[in-house]
Amino acid sequence: MHTLDVALGDRSYPIHIGRGLLDDPSLILARLKSPRVAIVTNDRVGPLYLERLERGLQANGVRTAAVVLPDGEAYKDWQTLNLIFDALLTSRCERSTTLIALGGGVVGDMAGFAAATYQRGMPFIQVPTTLLSQVDSSVGGKTAINHPLGKNMIGAFYQPRLVIADTATLDTLPERELKAGVAEVIKYGLIRDLAFFEWLEANLERLLDRDPASLAYAIERSCRNKAEVVAADETERGERALLNLGHTFGHAIEAGLGYGEWLHGEAVAAGTIMAARLSCKLGWLDEAAFERAVALFRRAGLPVQGPALGAARYLDLMAHDKKVEDGRLRLVLLKGLGSSVVSDAATSEQIAATIEACCA
Amino acid sequence: MHTLDVALGDRSYPIHIGRGLLDDPSLILARLKSPRVAIVTNDRVGPLYLERLERGLQANGVRTAAVVLPDGEAYKDWQTLNLIFDALLTSRCERSTTLIALGGGVVGDMAGFAAATYQRGMPFIQVPTTLLSQVDSSVGGKTAINHPLGKNMIGAFYQPRLVIADTATLDTLPERELKAGVAEVIKYGLIRDLAFFEWLEANLERLLDRDPASLAYAIERSCRNKAEVVAADETERGERALLNLGHTFGHAIEAGLGYGEWLHGEAVAAGTIMAARLSCKLGWLDEAAFERAVALFRRAGLPVQGPALGAARYLDLMAHDKKVEDGRLRLVLLKGLGSSVVSDAATSEQIAATIEACCA
Repeated sequence: MHTLDVALGDRSYPIHIGRGLLDDPSLILARLKSPRVAIVTNDRVGPLYLERLERGLQANGVRTAAVVLPDGEAYKDWQTLNLIFDALLTSRCERSTTLIALGGGVVGDMAGFAAATYQRGMPFIQVPTTLLSQVDSSVGGKTAINHPLGKNMIGAFYQPRLVIADTATLDTLPERELKAGVAEVIKYGLIRDLAFFEWLEANLERLLDRDPASLAYAIERSCRNKAEVVAADETERGERALLNLGHTFGHAIEAGLGYGEWLHGEAVAAGTIMAARLSCKLGWLDEAAFERAVALFRRAGLPVQGPALGAARYLDLMAHDKKVEDGRLRLVLLKGLGSSVVSDAATSEQIAATIEACCA
Repeated sequence: MHTLDVALGDRSYPIHIGRGLLDDPSLILARLKSPRVAIVTNDRVGPLYLERLERGLQANGVRTAAVVLPDGEAYKDWQTLNLIFDALLTSRCERSTTLIALGGGVVGDMAGFAAATYQRGMPFIQVPTTLLSQVDSSVGGKTAINHPLGKNMIGAFYQPRLVIADTATLDTLPERELKAGVAEVIKYGLIRDLAFFEWLEANLERLLDRDPASLAYAIERSCRNKAEVVAADETERGERALLNLGHTFGHAIEAGLGYGEWLHGEAVAAGTIMAARLSCKLGWLDEAAFERAVALFRRAGLPVQGPALGAARYLDLMAHDKKVEDGRLRLVLLKGLGSSVVSDAATSEQIAATIEACCA
């Protein structure tokens, strides 16, 4: 087991990474405020792991309740969030009850937002079961639901007390989701860790083959990058925005096609290529570097072109982005591989031309 | 103009109290992050004050948008909250846009929760226009919406950057709402400020007659009490819970009758008498003190008996309260006038008997 710390003063917490951690309830027991938990999961992950998690806790005297949500980004909305509140209230969960998210990014984001707002805040633990959530969304305290006009528009910064990434849960992860997770892994290499990008160039197939050592390494290195950024800028006033490489374009893809059509990681992959292309246009990234990025996403089986929604529709959706300031779109762009900036240097015309060039 | 400060480190903020402050946009201008605001109000307060507030800001180069909600506690729900999000998104409000709540407690609680969660948090200003919101709900950062199973069950601690209490807005406040606000004023006297309680005994009629000096004094003294408590315990781990005297019983009344049937302050008045009666039963308050409390609420035209929902229904609704811990109900009780504690000393039987004795 590897343990990293997210250093946030009195809200610091550990990330445990390892095979079979789901079978070790002591990790969770050590962080409970009272012997009561409510577990939020979905109808795909629940049948695989819920009983095991509940049994381990119950055997240690913890009262558990469970909420099983429908699976998918399309359900990351208020209606589904309300299923959590209904369950918490009908099973009389208290402010000291700990909410545990067992599942991927959607479950973690929704359960986290429920924990942030139920009785104005209850303790929260993340047990991510997808690559994407293990390397990215479970760490750092971003919680949210979607609004028809924009992804993650309603949410809160709310840190978990603990993250447990059991890499054995990736054994059951569908191929497509594994690849989607790789998109966020590549992201860390591109924005701030050239050596990791090069490691991925050398080891991508091992990762896709789910070689345990490679997976563990990629997860740990991704989490370390994430933890460093979050510790330096918890509420995204600066550096943390770099973690959104490809996300402004990507969110437009997700909202434009309807949530759930493309997986988040797929949209981020295509969005990252758009950001890289725009970086080339501004003279900040050379063609060879751009091609290396494209090649790596291609090898991961990820889309390197966006859907043809039309540049106008993209721009319209992007105008709702959280990084818009004074009406100007601020995008994460690359200055060479492994280095990134948040910039409003690109004009609408340059952005539109980039979108047109990067859509199928 | 009187100014008090809520001392919360880098989230400290001023409360300005005075007649005609709504006509002084400079107070707001000084606290904006960008020259954009969105004003949330309701269909009763909006027609009275919205245009004045907007005009003053626009004359100073601030772009304004407005959302007018239906009036009343019955609308403090997700559907109505969503009207705020829809308006913020369609008018493309940014993370740096400031949300201004113009209205009473319901508007303030909902707008505050919207500000806490829109794009994970935007700046927020309270302009309370009822006595209740000026003395209580606009200060301290509690925001929430109701759930059918419990009042204020979904919310966040989120501090405003500024509170402006224009006492001239109370000129148009309906009589019933003025009295409801007095319930929270009396509360401060009961829980921690015997001298204020005695001032109220001497000056209540002046307050009900809206004598400007008496109103200004009562508001300032209430806010000072509130600011002290909030500064000492922002997220209600201890002392802050005392501000909820009468609220656990009161919330049961509000939820049990259907939100909006009784005003919040009316329910708090009846709930406070229940808490006082229970305090007598435990030997913590003598009969003479109890009668002084009852007499003051009576003079304010406030209910001193709850509706006859039946003790079982009360207890059921109270079991959802945020102060329940390990299944035990923790109530704010009086130890003499001007002194209070949070305690789980009362048994269910004692609570039930108290409810029966205090219902019409």
